[in-house]
Amino acid sequence: MITKISGGVTAAKGFFAACTAAGIKYKGRTDMAMVYSEAPCVTAGTYTKNVVKAAPVLWDRELTDGDKLVQAVVINAGIANACTGEEGFGYCRQTSDAAKKALKLNGTEVLVASTGVIGKQLPIDRIVAGTEALAGKLDSSIEAGTAASKAIMTTDTQNKEIAFTFEVGGKTCTLGGMCKGSGMIHPNMCTMLGFLTTDCLIDKKLMLKALREDIEDTFNMVSVDGDTSTNDSVMLLSNGLAGNPVINDENSEEYKTFKEALRGVTLYMAKNIAADGEGATKLFEVKVVNAADVKKAKILALSVIKSSLTKAAVYGNDANVGRIMCALGYSGVDFDPYNVDITISSENGKSQLVSNGVPTDFDEELATKILSGKEVTALCDMKEGSAEATAWGCDLTYDYVKINADYRS
Amino acid sequence: MITKISGGVTAAKGFFAACTAAGIKYKGRTDMAMVYSEAPCVTAGTYTKNVVKAAPVLWDRELTDGDKLVQAVVINAGIANACTGEEGFGYCRQTSDAAKKALKLNGTEVLVASTGVIGKQLPIDRIVAGTEALAGKLDSSIEAGTAASKAIMTTDTQNKEIAFTFEVGGKTCTLGGMCKGSGMIHPNMCTMLGFLTTDCLIDKKLMLKALREDIEDTFNMVSVDGDTSTNDSVMLLSNGLAGNPVINDENSEEYKTFKEALRGVTLYMAKNIAADGEGATKLFEVKVVNAADVKKAKILALSVIKSSLTKAAVYGNDANVGRIMCALGYSGVDFDPYNVDITISSENGKSQLVSNGVPTDFDEELATKILSGKEVTALCDMKEGSAEATAWGCDLTYDYVKINADYRS
Repeated sequence: MITKISGGVTAAKGFFAACTAAGIKYKGRTDMAMVYSEAPCVTAGTYTKNVVKAAPVLWDRELTDGDKLVQAVVINAGIANACTGEEGFGYCRQTSDAAKKALKLNGTEVLVASTGVIGKQLPIDRIVAGTEALAGKLDSSIEAGTAASKAIMTTDTQNKEIAFTFEVGGKTCTLGGMCKGSGMIHPNMCTMLGFLTTDCLIDKKLMLKALREDIEDTFNMVSVDGDTSTNDSVMLLSNGLAGNPVINDENSEEYKTFKEALRGVTLYMAKNIAADGEGATKLFEVKVVNAADVKKAKILALSVIKSSLTKAAVYGNDANVGRIMCALGYSGVDFDPYNVDITISSENGKSQLVSNGVPTDFDEELATKILSGKEVTALCDMKEGSAEATAWGCDLTYDYVKINADYRS
Repeated sequence: MITKISGGVTAAKGFFAACTAAGIKYKGRTDMAMVYSEAPCVTAGTYTKNVVKAAPVLWDRELTDGDKLVQAVVINAGIANACTGEEGFGYCRQTSDAAKKALKLNGTEVLVASTGVIGKQLPIDRIVAGTEALAGKLDSSIEAGTAASKAIMTTDTQNKEIAFTFEVGGKTCTLGGMCKGSGMIHPNMCTMLGFLTTDCLIDKKLMLKALREDIEDTFNMVSVDGDTSTNDSVMLLSNGLAGNPVINDENSEEYKTFKEALRGVTLYMAKNIAADGEGATKLFEVKVVNAADVKKAKILALSVIKSSLTKAAVYGNDANVGRIMCALGYSGVDFDPYNVDITISSENGKSQLVSNGVPTDFDEELATKILSGKEVTALCDMKEGSAEATAWGCDLTYDYVKINADYRS
């Protein structure tokens, strides 16, 4: 059993956060954050599959794949430090060095993360000064975590944080985190940065296994615009301060509970990244049920969630269900079109639009009302097997174009 | 050698066209067209790979894959006759029967094609009446071909037609055609209908081979929005009236010339479909050179042409070249990012934006001027091998969203 509590990245015992306005790109707002643990952490990380990997991705992957313990993460918004060559990679080292010095770390490491424009070099002097400022402002309050979650936003309209508690061996553990992501969001890790912290003691390999399995059904089922970023990273830090007996058996109830808490956090993040997609007016969820197998169910769900035409119709509250049929059809999965049922639902009601591949005589007015909801679901019943998958995205709006037609200036 | 001439679907000897306003969906414009050959034609067809195939696709594929001769094509705009089950397929038969009767065909067949809204049944009485009207208005003039190319438009802003002549065995042959396509345009056949006519006598198998190979480098390298339609069809009809010795050797000069004429027609169509993409303000061309192999070059080019973020930046005349690097990176093709050069060009100039994976210190003002051209090309030099590929698309604009947010009404 897991219980939702307030807070995010500072919810777990021993974690601190801070933010500052370093003046990297944005004016009049914070743009750097630090997460710090008073005890050394084991880590797990998953990163973008884009061949063009930002410098921080290369930096962090080496650290989280290795055995070194980590005590802090330094994050900046505004510039992604991607396509920046050796110079950019050197800035990761300089940032880490500045943090180690300011935090007086003794043998533990520092992760770095960046989000923003690709192909610009970081203003390293400001980053170093910002890092030093962050080290002096660390705070374990919920508010400090919330403030950090705001500092890492780019085109996000809302900060995103959540936390859960759960019991392991009689001890209360906490797993929480913050994330950002709004554009350049697509499976294989979104343009998203996720920072998860827990005080639960768990074997590093099991933690990585849990994270890797989890993101396949959460972050990797989100698509805002089909663009897989150069910077996507989700990192999970565990300092073990909850005092629980270590979780090291993947068949144990405790591991199951840990995974449940992890899923609680990542599912919330995935849905909220989708709902906060650039220019989005609503969350669009596509659920494929009774597919032949899970892989096919995922491909079908992602094909619909990515369809520009479907997304534009969802924006216009237009029950153009032919576009959903069409997107299922070009997914690459073979199926019998005359077997498919499609039902849409939202907080405003429910209506079956397609029966056995052919549109029903549905009530257009009701369909429009359903589509005008804040959370719209399209349920596609393939009637072929028993596998299912869910994908999350958003509508395609004027504002998406507006935001992205001149993002750099 | 091939020579461009005026005209389109009626340019080749013995071909006639007609159009009429059948009142299917649009008001105050023509929405049905017929193409007719005074002599029976051998045919070749290529169709959408979407699992959800519109009724006319099923109808036509059976005919063009078989040995029966064809003498006419009946086309309607407004309703796609897709997701319409057996009822929809029956309407293909009824339309064909009506045409056969009105044209007094004796043993030859009639192809049908539809484009428009998915999931609505055709108003078959109007279609039949329209077919009868078309049969009475057939005309072999250039103007009749042009009028037909206008009748098949949906959200297209321009009609699209072209023709070339070429010599085979001392005889002048002609190959021309018309097409439509604007939204739901994506590789594996666009939401596009293409009708190609020739008087050149050619073996049916060779004609199909030529068409299949050709579309891989032309229509299948176009993407407006990543949505592969249920109705995509390209049909080529040959009536042999040029009187040339039959082309039946794939190693002959004559076959090479035929392919050259075919490429002239389809390349023009592909580029013009891209440039006339829904809401587009410009043609965007992505050329990948020096890739490891052709397959990889195509995947890389298509990945960039499909990137919503790149398309939005092209619309905003914003030289956000990091998005091009990013889109190459998530294509699925492995390459060394620090090997890539990117140069943009248009009628307004040329500028190298990336050198060995890192942005150059390019002139922003010049880059904006180049991007504000009508035909913008991004040249991506992978410096890995000698293969190349070109893809065509357009920018992503407010108007794309506007057109598609409420397409059905």
